[in-house]
Amino acid sequence: MSAADTDIGGTFDQLWSELLPLGVTATGGYRRFAWNDADLEARSWFASAARARSLDVQTDRNGNLWAWWLPAGWSGEPRGAFVSGSHLDSVPDGGAFDGPLGVVSALCAIDVLRSRGVQLLRPVAVAVFADEEGARFGVACAGSRLATGALLPQAACALTDVDGVSLDQAMRRAGVNTAQLGRDDEALRRVGVFVELHIEQGRALVDIDAPVGIGTNIWPHGRWRFSFEGQANHAGTTLVIDRRDPMLPFAAAVLGVRKIAAAHGGVATFGRVHVEPNGTNAIPVRVTGWLDARGPDQAVVDAIVSGVTTVAHGGAVAENVELIVTAESVSAAVEFSAEVNARLHRVLGGMADLGAVPDLGTGAGHDAGVLSSAVPTAMLFVRNPTGVSHSPAEFAERADCIVGVEALAAVMTDWVTTSESVETS
Amino acid sequence: MSAADTDIGGTFDQLWSELLPLGVTATGGYRRFAWNDADLEARSWFASAARARSLDVQTDRNGNLWAWWLPAGWSGEPRGAFVSGSHLDSVPDGGAFDGPLGVVSALCAIDVLRSRGVQLLRPVAVAVFADEEGARFGVACAGSRLATGALLPQAACALTDVDGVSLDQAMRRAGVNTAQLGRDDEALRRVGVFVELHIEQGRALVDIDAPVGIGTNIWPHGRWRFSFEGQANHAGTTLVIDRRDPMLPFAAAVLGVRKIAAAHGGVATFGRVHVEPNGTNAIPVRVTGWLDARGPDQAVVDAIVSGVTTVAHGGAVAENVELIVTAESVSAAVEFSAEVNARLHRVLGGMADLGAVPDLGTGAGHDAGVLSSAVPTAMLFVRNPTGVSHSPAEFAERADCIVGVEALAAVMTDWVTTSESVETS
Repeated sequence: MSAADTDIGGTFDQLWSELLPLGVTATGGYRRFAWNDADLEARSWFASAARARSLDVQTDRNGNLWAWWLPAGWSGEPRGAFVSGSHLDSVPDGGAFDGPLGVVSALCAIDVLRSRGVQLLRPVAVAVFADEEGARFGVACAGSRLATGALLPQAACALTDVDGVSLDQAMRRAGVNTAQLGRDDEALRRVGVFVELHIEQGRALVDIDAPVGIGTNIWPHGRWRFSFEGQANHAGTTLVIDRRDPMLPFAAAVLGVRKIAAAHGGVATFGRVHVEPNGTNAIPVRVTGWLDARGPDQAVVDAIVSGVTTVAHGGAVAENVELIVTAESVSAAVEFSAEVNARLHRVLGGMADLGAVPDLGTGAGHDAGVLSSAVPTAMLFVRNPTGVSHSPAEFAERADCIVGVEALAAVMTDWVTTSESVETS
Repeated sequence: MSAADTDIGGTFDQLWSELLPLGVTATGGYRRFAWNDADLEARSWFASAARARSLDVQTDRNGNLWAWWLPAGWSGEPRGAFVSGSHLDSVPDGGAFDGPLGVVSALCAIDVLRSRGVQLLRPVAVAVFADEEGARFGVACAGSRLATGALLPQAACALTDVDGVSLDQAMRRAGVNTAQLGRDDEALRRVGVFVELHIEQGRALVDIDAPVGIGTNIWPHGRWRFSFEGQANHAGTTLVIDRRDPMLPFAAAVLGVRKIAAAHGGVATFGRVHVEPNGTNAIPVRVTGWLDARGPDQAVVDAIVSGVTTVAHGGAVAENVELIVTAESVSAAVEFSAEVNARLHRVLGGMADLGAVPDLGTGAGHDAGVLSSAVPTAMLFVRNPTGVSHSPAEFAERADCIVGVEALAAVMTDWVTTSESVETS
């Protein structure tokens, strides 16, 4: 496999080096937020890279990109396709790998199949789902949620960013006809299976010394907006008894989160805060914090949200502050298809570079999780030496990335060289 | 006095209605930050209003504006002047009165003296001090601090706003030659006394039913930046034991502040927070909170800062987070000149509209406080029905504003019609 390794490495390095500078900031992190200039640049890069491979690039009704490789002589719409890919947008100051690794690996895998002369019995596509992180408009996986109908077009269009720009405006600026947003049965009918390769966002693969793992499930999770509304006033002249400071119940909620999540066996975080007016010498009128809560089952998530709400409410009452809690984005538990996973184990089990391929559950949401309600889906994870993600320090070794491409290419080869169908689990 | 009242009201209404729309936002609040477009617009309005009164408008070395009315036949530099005024910049979403009321009242008082045919023995000036709130560059009263030498030019120039624009750049853009910043003995030598009229930022005047009070002292106060640095990571996949979340010690500090300040008899607030990267699904790498602490004496302020630092440090250690505390702006206690205050009481004591004129201490910093180290200073406060300040809800009744102008005009008249000098207290 050493000759193929060299080829994969060269292809990987080229694509990676093209994509790496797009939207990078002084910190080394990315600010590719849905439909902003950096995101559009990355999408444009993808279209060019796909066209350079003679793939047919299409934008679906919801702004997701698909690059098609059809079997020789295929006529009509694609059916039963093997689809891989991920997303190109980032969290604020995000890492280089979360999303892009899956897109680059899928393009590399196509190069591998072609260099090996694999003849397709089924179509192949690389998909780039729009707005996976939800960093700008608040709803994660907006592109795949729109496609499956989990997010309704009216609700999506009304989402706004911090500058008051609506998702509708942002998508129209990028050339998407937002009148056509919505559940996309035609796009979903084309998919035989969706396999998303992704950098691991924890250290399970490090601990068991494996370069690649297979995703089994995604924890239920969601985002809740806690809006504390008090009274703006002068920080120096307002007596304590006259204060209605929303920062205090917010702080109580932050300290509550850690204990409550730990007590229930989940994780929960306030990582985003918006303070108005945010002046050093002004008691805020409003503090908005976003709770990210996840757990092994729905009861844990519900208990965390309920517990944090109780603590926040207690703090708000004590300070005579109003509290409004709004669910912004809620994802039920996902179990990936057992049948697909069994097939992945069979294919990957024989690869010397991989060793034993472990099963991994994850607390992170993914387009593969959203799509699992409509089509068979699976995930491959690539080892992350520190486990750090959503940070400029996010990293995977080149050697592990190349093993990931090999694994994805093997799975792709298995799928496209058989006409055996896979039922939705 | 009814005829004069009508005149004052008309002048006041006109100036107020000209200034009110400049930089107002959808909330009804202002975002006139030092040297931004709204601030420049307000400064330009002042220059026009002063020139319309044939006042000689000058910009001093530090960007402060002075509008001069000289006695007939005065030659050479002004000396022993009666100076009034305040500032035009605002906190984020600030009110209409904090600053502007003092500027408008000073212009109105000049109109009153002229309409009454008062002949000057001393010069009069209206001053607009630059960057009083420190909302953009972090240091309050930057214009008056530069003039007195309390803020050094090099330190001032290096201050930056959230977009990385330096105060040096912002002032140069506005046409200020920043090479000339620094202690301005020539400007200070001109001032015989500085009397700043200001809206009250509490409810003391309401409680004693008085429209106007005389400032006696300003509490020592300051701003300290608490920077908590942890490790950016994924909010959904990072185990609790792997977390170094700077939001937690920040929250501990917020909850500590209220108790610690109350225990020592001061007030302290975290009203401004900056979170990086501020993503819902990202553990922050850094949370920066600004502590505003004030107390009746320096020992109280020191005890508050020390107590909050201890709590913040404890939280930081528990979470394996770094804490750096930096003093950004520290103001010692100010006692206004007892001699000037006695003279104000003598002048105002005879005015029927005022009744008994109470003495007031305040927790708020003012240019008059900064200038008190260099020239005799005093303050007049105008009643605020709710005590709310640094908020769009900040308000004073028109009738009280006009009584304030009458009081200022009486003090101005007393000063300019005598050649008696006032020693710096």
